[in-house]
Amino acid sequence: MKRVHNFNAGPAALPLAALERVQSQLLDFEGTGMSILEHSHREPPYERVHRGAMSLLRSLLAVPDTHDILFMQGGARAQFAFVPMNLLPPGKSADYVVTGTWAKGALEEAQLVGKARVAANTEADGKFTRVPKPSELSLDPDAAYVHLTSNNTLFGTQWQSYPDTGSVPLVADMTSDLLSRQIDVSRFGLIYAGAQKNAGPSGVTIVIARKDLIEGGRKDIPKIFRYSTFSKNESLFNTPPSFSIHVMHEVLIELAAKGGVAALEAETRAKSDLVYGRIDARPRFYIGPVEKESRSRSNVVFRLPTEELEKKFLKEAEARSLVGLKGHRSVGGIRASLYVALPLAAVEALGSFMDAFAAENDR
Amino acid sequence: MKRVHNFNAGPAALPLAALERVQSQLLDFEGTGMSILEHSHREPPYERVHRGAMSLLRSLLAVPDTHDILFMQGGARAQFAFVPMNLLPPGKSADYVVTGTWAKGALEEAQLVGKARVAANTEADGKFTRVPKPSELSLDPDAAYVHLTSNNTLFGTQWQSYPDTGSVPLVADMTSDLLSRQIDVSRFGLIYAGAQKNAGPSGVTIVIARKDLIEGGRKDIPKIFRYSTFSKNESLFNTPPSFSIHVMHEVLIELAAKGGVAALEAETRAKSDLVYGRIDARPRFYIGPVEKESRSRSNVVFRLPTEELEKKFLKEAEARSLVGLKGHRSVGGIRASLYVALPLAAVEALGSFMDAFAAENDR
Repeated sequence: MKRVHNFNAGPAALPLAALERVQSQLLDFEGTGMSILEHSHREPPYERVHRGAMSLLRSLLAVPDTHDILFMQGGARAQFAFVPMNLLPPGKSADYVVTGTWAKGALEEAQLVGKARVAANTEADGKFTRVPKPSELSLDPDAAYVHLTSNNTLFGTQWQSYPDTGSVPLVADMTSDLLSRQIDVSRFGLIYAGAQKNAGPSGVTIVIARKDLIEGGRKDIPKIFRYSTFSKNESLFNTPPSFSIHVMHEVLIELAAKGGVAALEAETRAKSDLVYGRIDARPRFYIGPVEKESRSRSNVVFRLPTEELEKKFLKEAEARSLVGLKGHRSVGGIRASLYVALPLAAVEALGSFMDAFAAENDR
Repeated sequence: MKRVHNFNAGPAALPLAALERVQSQLLDFEGTGMSILEHSHREPPYERVHRGAMSLLRSLLAVPDTHDILFMQGGARAQFAFVPMNLLPPGKSADYVVTGTWAKGALEEAQLVGKARVAANTEADGKFTRVPKPSELSLDPDAAYVHLTSNNTLFGTQWQSYPDTGSVPLVADMTSDLLSRQIDVSRFGLIYAGAQKNAGPSGVTIVIARKDLIEGGRKDIPKIFRYSTFSKNESLFNTPPSFSIHVMHEVLIELAAKGGVAALEAETRAKSDLVYGRIDARPRFYIGPVEKESRSRSNVVFRLPTEELEKKFLKEAEARSLVGLKGHRSVGGIRASLYVALPLAAVEALGSFMDAFAAENDR
């Protein structure tokens, strides 16, 4: 069996021990004589997995009793629509902070649902190289909520701390940095995250939301889109994406064993320092477009002086089993995604390669 | 390794050979050094799986060029909302044929989206024991579409042939009988099916729709809910539920190897004949509530004279490794789901058990 260093932006690397447990039980889950893929979602073997994943998430993220955890489908893109459908009633407006492609996507869906305005926009020359300073936010005190994207996979920026929105609920897309940093969940009205970066595979979306917002959500929308439907039914209103939740459960067990979110944050910091260190050492060869105060610790993006060198870099990296380093198709360049399941050793291997590649090509 | 006879209503039995291939590659997919769970959905290894599943579905169901195949998320429940959101414009009305719990659910979601009327309702005393005759349908010739549920898992009824709706598009929820019977796709405007009965695991929904309906769909709804978004992007607009599609792909390979849908239909007929034969042989012991002309070949439901006997039946069945036979929690009784991956041998074992149980308890 071959295993590479996987820098994919998502779906992404998963802990090997979690995959091994999933594999060993694939034909016969816990001695039940069937795969978890074949289990009813209404019977105890799956229910234990489902509740186990919820309870691990609650303890890993210290989610207070004021908030519910939901497992939904459709990824962050579906949340772009579900958030305003649930939380933006007619006559109200929502504030959106535009810091990249995903934030823009969220704004555009909200505008198809109701009234949404831009509270800040850091786009310059078609690019986003930073998140806004608190002073740049023009917040509507009557807004239904303020929406931001915690980490921008594509442009490699990240909020280092979150703005104070007073009594207006803060809604955050944390798809790419949930579980990689400690957060105070009580400060958020709603958090959502597609699982396929840090928490597990694609196919399941984590939603953490204040119970009063869930209960007060709009009732004039289809039942299947209401957060209250999922909350009331422990996310078992209809058939859940059971295998994705099973894999997430196994991943969360590994993350807890690693020491929880505090340990994951420290390791994410160490991993990203390794790569940013190389960028800062040779800033004209490894060109980091992102302002230092906005640098993402989950997705480190950089360019090389020419596209030819970028191609060569990617090809030689791959020859060393360093894969998934190509930047997003819309921006090009190099992107190293450093999600929590990626071993530190993989980043060290990348660092050594960056040294060697620069020594040979930067002269 | 233990494997039981799995009569689950969904998620349900999958072909063992498909599961074995999934298992053997779980840590290293096709020599790429990573799991398919860890693969980017924008790279060739996953793209081949995605397109392979679509192309197998197209050939298995003989889907004509006039129709597109989409892979979505959220199950049939999400389609209950997506169908009217896309196909029911303001000022129009849609017709719903109510033959069970799922059909009712579809109607109720549609009524939250627009105007939907009941074209027929076969409920009697809180139960559904048949689908309507064509003469019972009161169809609106100006309806945006007519919606029906092809097979009712819960009450064990099934349309033997589909009504002629003239120029009004016919929309069918085929979650529980897609791939178990030959259909003329050209007669349908749109077909949808959660995969977790016949086609694969939960987490992915198959949609087969006429291209002109997709293109003419409403544009005033969020982009992520539009069939046109999925069609234009080959269902890769956002991250798909890639593992569910991978498993579905492996399942479809097995179904094709079995001889395709004609062979699956013949086997489904043989399997259901085995169980209905037992019911008809002892109609006062194995009580089949469904009218013969409406009997489902996918889900055979029956009662026993007392609830005590039903409990005893389920317990002794389980002791013989016949599992998943409990009726839906809302109706009770016994239900044998005979989806295409369930081996004939499992149904033969059930038949023998029914004989033995009746010999001992029916006197």
